[in-house]
Amino acid sequence: MNSRRSFIQKVALTAASIPLLRFQSLAAPPASDEPVLRVALMGLGGYANRVADAMKSCKKAKLTGAISGTPAKLTDWQQRFGIPEKNCYNYQTFDQIKNNPDIDVVYITTPNALHHSQVLRVAAAGKHVICEKPMAINAKEGQEMVDACKKAGVHLLVGYRMHFEPKTLEVIGMRNSGEFGKIMFFQGQCGFRIGDPTQWRLNKELAGGGSMMDIGIYAINGARYMVGEEPIWVTAQEVKTDPVKFKPGVDETIQFQFGFPSGAVASCLSTYNMNYLDRFYLNGEKGFAELQPSTGYGPIRGRTNKGELTAPHVTHQTIQMEEMADIILRGKQPLIPVNGEEGVKDLKIIDAIYAAVKSGRKEPLKLV
Amino acid sequence: MNSRRSFIQKVALTAASIPLLRFQSLAAPPASDEPVLRVALMGLGGYANRVADAMKSCKKAKLTGAISGTPAKLTDWQQRFGIPEKNCYNYQTFDQIKNNPDIDVVYITTPNALHHSQVLRVAAAGKHVICEKPMAINAKEGQEMVDACKKAGVHLLVGYRMHFEPKTLEVIGMRNSGEFGKIMFFQGQCGFRIGDPTQWRLNKELAGGGSMMDIGIYAINGARYMVGEEPIWVTAQEVKTDPVKFKPGVDETIQFQFGFPSGAVASCLSTYNMNYLDRFYLNGEKGFAELQPSTGYGPIRGRTNKGELTAPHVTHQTIQMEEMADIILRGKQPLIPVNGEEGVKDLKIIDAIYAAVKSGRKEPLKLV
Repeated sequence: MNSRRSFIQKVALTAASIPLLRFQSLAAPPASDEPVLRVALMGLGGYANRVADAMKSCKKAKLTGAISGTPAKLTDWQQRFGIPEKNCYNYQTFDQIKNNPDIDVVYITTPNALHHSQVLRVAAAGKHVICEKPMAINAKEGQEMVDACKKAGVHLLVGYRMHFEPKTLEVIGMRNSGEFGKIMFFQGQCGFRIGDPTQWRLNKELAGGGSMMDIGIYAINGARYMVGEEPIWVTAQEVKTDPVKFKPGVDETIQFQFGFPSGAVASCLSTYNMNYLDRFYLNGEKGFAELQPSTGYGPIRGRTNKGELTAPHVTHQTIQMEEMADIILRGKQPLIPVNGEEGVKDLKIIDAIYAAVKSGRKEPLKLV
Repeated sequence: MNSRRSFIQKVALTAASIPLLRFQSLAAPPASDEPVLRVALMGLGGYANRVADAMKSCKKAKLTGAISGTPAKLTDWQQRFGIPEKNCYNYQTFDQIKNNPDIDVVYITTPNALHHSQVLRVAAAGKHVICEKPMAINAKEGQEMVDACKKAGVHLLVGYRMHFEPKTLEVIGMRNSGEFGKIMFFQGQCGFRIGDPTQWRLNKELAGGGSMMDIGIYAINGARYMVGEEPIWVTAQEVKTDPVKFKPGVDETIQFQFGFPSGAVASCLSTYNMNYLDRFYLNGEKGFAELQPSTGYGPIRGRTNKGELTAPHVTHQTIQMEEMADIILRGKQPLIPVNGEEGVKDLKIIDAIYAAVKSGRKEPLKLV
């Protein structure tokens, strides 16, 4: 473990901050002698199924395990994805994963409020962790998760699929090349009308909040990686039109605004009560970029002042897992960080947004 | 005058509020025996030239007079637009317009801070007034102008060209027909990079403010007529990246947000420091509308969930003057009001936006 730990520490130390990052090439096929990342999925709901299906196309990552509280789901997954029974666990037994040489990393796709304790348990078992976003329900929890994984010498990555999306990276590459000039403004509209009112995403105890935790975080991500700076203040305004569906602590719609050190500003919308949104817009002195749709499962579409974006669509979860294999196994530095520290920054912003809603005032942010 | 005054009062009393308005047909050609609105332009700068050119295509309105402090401009206009010398005035003499039977209305396109005194003088001369937006530099001035015109028995209209723009009205017609369902969200991005730093628009004394007065007001208008309600609160955040070009009191960039009684919200941007903006976006439970460009001189382009907007482009100032002739001469009620009361509402909002920037808090609005 010692050499791995020192390697990981080196990765953490050299991880470039967003403004300095270079444009990366898409994942190249692995050399035949390179190891494949062996993944166990924890929490076998709809999103885990999407990830598992997407991983069928992966060359660098492979689904080898599953963790669920529902025995029938484990049986089903064994059949559908060829997972051996010995690699299946439930929430009482999964600490034993530390003795399983077939699993390198556990990808947690459970409800938000469970991430903290589950990440700590996986880290204690000595396995790497990929935690679906939001990484936790507040920055304090997130930092504890980062600290625990660092102490255990394991990678902690956050399931930020858009951070690997080709058209998104095409825009960031253009920005880094100066094609838009000085960046002035970002606008991110993220939301959808959520269905079933009994789902965990509308339960404060499990979700830790409402639309902001689930979909608003994409606008936060977008503001940060599109502008290429860290915001220094945030203001936010909440409205709730359906207090029956959206209980106290579960935000329906929040508008929020950022200011950046350069003077650039951002205007964002997070909502569980509107369709026909999903747009990123980046404005610079010399040009603009528009992604619309910007965060759906794709294909993402977009244009700039130079014309249509041309990067090809790839299933988001496929390329995410390919890239995460390179990060975990080969120390690759992604264009946009997806590590726990990055997740904590987003949680600090979410904490500040909720604080700004309550205070009605501009809340300062210190992310660097 | 008595019958005219009572007629005007009747118009004011029956003016429908925005949510109740019906979709109107475009201006029909006048009957051969109908009078034509005879217009004098005051302030012969770039915008007055645009209006005068556009009026060449008007059937219901005609340019018959001019007011300028620059004798050479008056000579030039006499030649270019066939205006008789007897219908030309300067800022010392224009009160005499009251004795001129060839002029029905004065269209004021001077710097914002001059509107108040000039409107009062035109009203005192017994002529109708069209005042370019912003109608004044604050709501107090605007209300005094409304009161003065009411007392004088003359119409006071504001030069809101977008209020007559066909694609804009097409969207509002669709909204009124329920095509978008319950309205949830409006987004208005209005701005451009302003040039010459010595122009009056960047002089607080003449402009009364900065981008908000000139271009942000379009987003305010849009939020009101697209949502179809009056906002009940506003929050606002200012940034200034160039304090040399944008002196104290001259806003460069302001983000502002509205809340409406229904729970709908709006997110707006006003800037003198970004190009590639100019977008309106309206979101409803059943559909959306996007206008992009939304407020430039045209053609305006747009689409909804039903497809591209199809209303034909008309030069904005041409249709504005045709419609204003019908309002002034024939008591027509436009789909979106353009009277002084409407202008005062926008100024109350601008007052509140500037107050919200200073207070950093949600400012209440009482417009109805």
